[in-house]
Amino acid sequence: MAASDERAQALAANEAFYRAFAARDLTAMGRIWAQEADSICVHPGWTPLFGRDAVMESWAGILSNPAAPRIRCVRARATVEGTVARVVCYEVIERSILVATNLFARERGEWRLFHHQAGPAGDDASVLGSAESEAGPGSKRLH
Amino acid sequence: MAASDERAQALAANEAFYRAFAARDLTAMGRIWAQEADSICVHPGWTPLFGRDAVMESWAGILSNPAAPRIRCVRARATVEGTVARVVCYEVIERSILVATNLFARERGEWRLFHHQAGPAGDDASVLGSAESEAGPGSKRLH
Repeated sequence: MAASDERAQALAANEAFYRAFAARDLTAMGRIWAQEADSICVHPGWTPLFGRDAVMESWAGILSNPAAPRIRCVRARATVEGTVARVVCYEVIERSILVATNLFARERGEWRLFHHQAGPAGDDASVLGSAESEAGPGSKRLH
Repeated sequence: MAASDERAQALAANEAFYRAFAARDLTAMGRIWAQEADSICVHPGWTPLFGRDAVMESWAGILSNPAAPRIRCVRARATVEGTVARVVCYEVIERSILVATNLFARERGEWRLFHHQAGPAGDDASVLGSAESEAGPGSKRLH
């Protein structure tokens, strides 16, 4: 498969992840996460979750929370390194901007998510479109 | 190579990264990062940096900062997924706890870092050893 096709498929898998997240669709989320690869999920501000069972349990809680904020994914970029596809994107959750790393491995011909980490990003107001950022650049930098 | 050896080598490469970080050794940092794989670095609170040049420029700034806080890596866990090694660990920076994802690809027989993301972790006081955490569990959760 051409590298551009590999990347396009990874971006499609990444979009499916955020679609399931936004729609609070736990069944779709379960299909998106890998069955064979070791899954790790680092939700923002959480300690890491190791293994599919712990990861899916977290999503069951998050997606069933009626107060869960809206999320959208913007500026996704995919690269393929050997057998693994990596997508880095911004997550916009109300007025917070996160940056996420999502890793995908091939299972039965499809990219399946086996790693997700999201954490606070810099205050790049352009990510929000016309919205203003509430703090100056670099205000969350730790080093 | 046995899977356990692959993981051990990835943990050694991860340790070398934090040793270079703690020693502010830009030359060692340059050897640790990949030459061939697409490098991406997501420092905590920054927007993502794409490409070796941007990544190394950021390390030149961070490592030359005399006010840079001490860092240590604890509880590193390695897994290998196809051609990529993934290490998830905690970073302890003074009294802050971060969680990091570090990805390594093989170049000339050695694991070289091609992805780093670090962001705030949950307040697991045990990570700090005997130190107390300053906020309750989950206080930084965004969803």
